Amino acid sequence: MYPNLLMKRASLTPDRVALRFNEQEWSFANLAEEAIDFAEKLHTKGIKKGMRLAILASSNPKLVVVLHGCMQLGCELVMLNERLSEEELNYQLADSAPNYLLVDDHTKRNLAFSDKYSFDEIENAERSFLDLEKEWPKERTITIMYTSGTTGRPKGVRQSLENHVMNATGSALNLGIHPNDCWLCTMPLFHISGFSILMRSVYYGMAINLHTKFDAEAAIQEIISGTVTRMSAVAVTLERMLTVLESKNLSFPNTFQSVLVGGGPVPLNYLERALERNIPVLQTYGMTETASQTTTLASEDAIRKLGSAGKPLFFADVRIDGDEKVGEICIKGPHVTKGYVGAAETINPLVDGWLHTGDIGYLDEEGYLFVVDRRSDLIISGGENIYPAEVEQALVKHPAVKEAGVAGRQDEKWGQVPVAFVVLKGEASEEALRTFMKEQLANYKQPVDYYFVDQLPRNGSNKLMRRELFNCIKNT
Amino acid sequence: MYPNLLMKRASLTPDRVALRFNEQEWSFANLAEEAIDFAEKLHTKGIKKGMRLAILASSNPKLVVVLHGCMQLGCELVMLNERLSEEELNYQLADSAPNYLLVDDHTKRNLAFSDKYSFDEIENAERSFLDLEKEWPKERTITIMYTSGTTGRPKGVRQSLENHVMNATGSALNLGIHPNDCWLCTMPLFHISGFSILMRSVYYGMAINLHTKFDAEAAIQEIISGTVTRMSAVAVTLERMLTVLESKNLSFPNTFQSVLVGGGPVPLNYLERALERNIPVLQTYGMTETASQTTTLASEDAIRKLGSAGKPLFFADVRIDGDEKVGEICIKGPHVTKGYVGAAETINPLVDGWLHTGDIGYLDEEGYLFVVDRRSDLIISGGENIYPAEVEQALVKHPAVKEAGVAGRQDEKWGQVPVAFVVLKGEASEEALRTFMKEQLANYKQPVDYYFVDQLPRNGSNKLMRRELFNCIKNT
Repeated sequence: MYPNLLMKRASLTPDRVALRFNEQEWSFANLAEEAIDFAEKLHTKGIKKGMRLAILASSNPKLVVVLHGCMQLGCELVMLNERLSEEELNYQLADSAPNYLLVDDHTKRNLAFSDKYSFDEIENAERSFLDLEKEWPKERTITIMYTSGTTGRPKGVRQSLENHVMNATGSALNLGIHPNDCWLCTMPLFHISGFSILMRSVYYGMAINLHTKFDAEAAIQEIISGTVTRMSAVAVTLERMLTVLESKNLSFPNTFQSVLVGGGPVPLNYLERALERNIPVLQTYGMTETASQTTTLASEDAIRKLGSAGKPLFFADVRIDGDEKVGEICIKGPHVTKGYVGAAETINPLVDGWLHTGDIGYLDEEGYLFVVDRRSDLIISGGENIYPAEVEQALVKHPAVKEAGVAGRQDEKWGQVPVAFVVLKGEASEEALRTFMKEQLANYKQPVDYYFVDQLPRNGSNKLMRRELFNCIKNT
Repeated sequence: MYPNLLMKRASLTPDRVALRFNEQEWSFANLAEEAIDFAEKLHTKGIKKGMRLAILASSNPKLVVVLHGCMQLGCELVMLNERLSEEELNYQLADSAPNYLLVDDHTKRNLAFSDKYSFDEIENAERSFLDLEKEWPKERTITIMYTSGTTGRPKGVRQSLENHVMNATGSALNLGIHPNDCWLCTMPLFHISGFSILMRSVYYGMAINLHTKFDAEAAIQEIISGTVTRMSAVAVTLERMLTVLESKNLSFPNTFQSVLVGGGPVPLNYLERALERNIPVLQTYGMTETASQTTTLASEDAIRKLGSAGKPLFFADVRIDGDEKVGEICIKGPHVTKGYVGAAETINPLVDGWLHTGDIGYLDEEGYLFVVDRRSDLIISGGENIYPAEVEQALVKHPAVKEAGVAGRQDEKWGQVPVAFVVLKGEASEEALRTFMKEQLANYKQPVDYYFVDQLPRNGSNKLMRRELFNCIKNT
């Protein structure tokens, strides 16, 4: 058992700042009070311990209270990604089968799910007394987040209390804990990158400065004002901050400790520019299945170990599958998911206790991890994962599409962008396909270019060779 | 499972300082190397995984290497207290029945235990290859430390890997972790106060500056030089440092973070003087059974919550038994021992998951713990626990003693000192009793005064009323 995280934190350091948003500020005591209020109102609405609730909302203080309120009640949270299409959201709702859907705004999406409440509807309810649990089982599912696999069908990953707590413990042993720490959160809370900041906050007693979305100017202003000591980013957002800093000839203050950069390696050019601007960059290798970081590279090693994602954190272990130096990255530790919900529930993600990530990499002689290739043909665009198979499956739903192949193209701004290769069986313009795809998939997954080809490259067993797709252009 | 603590630490931060002693310095890589060397030599001597080893030695770097070496081999450590009499040591050896006794020096004690090696005998052996374990079971017994109960018979408390790790985690969430932290260790390593510093060092990657014993001048010199940020003390040693600082008109530097003071409350006078000398004092309530701290008081609350031992750390829970405000202090958490070895092996220290400490206290309305009275009639003298029953049992072994009662008297220097009340059945001088007792018990347990009385105060059921012993003096 672990203590009820928020209640324990509010008891230990009630007056410390938990959350800042624009000019507003919440102490841990304030946050606990509002979370209990929300939990008691959920209770009135018939929502009970052990129920599964899907959440669809923007990152703001109300969402923080809602998430903590649901946790106080003992519910599982299906964290829906706001950027997904209605089609995608409906799939996740059908697959995870929550008891209720909570949305910040009824009007914004048209979802095929009837048991839903807006945050306001809950807040307007009466409170009914709730006997708060002082302890929570380690195995309790806190969050469910969807992530696609190589098959292209998104799977709902269970993140237990132990996953979150042990990830935060490993991170603390690496980064340290300081009472004045404050983490700037510009990552969405429905992503593990954002949600893990929420967990670290209550566990460490650390303030969060919350932004609804990433804005380079606003982030820099916040950091230069001196309250923020840490932040999370991806290579693209780091680069945007560098551009702003360079244009204004500004640097980060010495009070700033580190920016944790996930979602693929950071180019040397960015690292060198970050050094110029006094930004300690910690590159990390993490994923939904590991409740965020597994390995993290110290900033002092950033240049010496260029391209590395660092060493496994204290409770994490990494090995490379197979007999070759380069192979599939496998992860073990108390931060690794125990499994999925819905259609994937019967799949055991672990083989002999090890998570097989599908990512390819190696460990150098000092034990530093180098990720050579993200799982299968994964495209990482602005830190978001795009699974080619998922985009391909959406394309072939169009009546005129016979076959489709999707691959990533290097892009200076986004790292990679998806490109589609289509074999038609009927009539369809590029425009028509674009319109169709907008209904199917989130914006960030939309192919930037469409190529109509006669056939797709396949190997002897007819498997699509995505890495050879770009050769089709040269051939046509 | 947890990682092999020292090997994981040496892999993460090989070059960080692990240990300093006089002018010498060990990195974590050095420490790991020496520990493996020692483990492989133990191996050659026939010592195997799972064996129990008793250790009797002074605090110095060799002992640190020995302890880590034994842990690498997977042995349980019975930590013998150097200050005990031969009688007491022999009891602990007989009770814990170790496979071997390791001593730093063969000549210093005459113990009835034949399977023993000196550290030198091990070091002079050849090395034989050892396949180091990458992971250690949480339940593994790391240390066994003897502590007396109300019955006066010392019990060997098992401290598991999880006990140590979770205690260190709770402490980190309270004190913070900083890469420049360095803990001055003047407490003996056979005590949980000292051994827990060793555990925090490898877990956090924190340096220890080790002193063989507490010396106020040396401690102050070390702290003023600026490398040390933390230390552990008891009220008596804090007071000695204050006296030296005052005589030289010195204060602690701002780099110094805190002194953790255990073993009973710190008098207001000391707290005020510490404030004058820039010493942040953190009062704590801990014990062998909880692998050190359970509650710790923040230094900013030291005066406001005078006499309090603070709030339960993150993973710890405290409740007061019974329906009254004041009652027996009960403790729950992953840092609490699962049990004993030897004669007490069958005793379950937990009732419904709670350790009943025997100490009396209350929680105030804000949740701060106040310890009103240490367990039963426990005497705390210079931070050392003295159990009256143990001293009484030693006294009645003398042929001329019919009955004996022991109680603590307030003492300006030591906090408390033991005083003996003796009913004779034959002839014995005070001198004769003193000589006899020196063979039985450690020096710090020796009664400072002896009173010969006609009878001892007993209640209706003939139970000795130790709190009324001092009334005997007035009556005679």
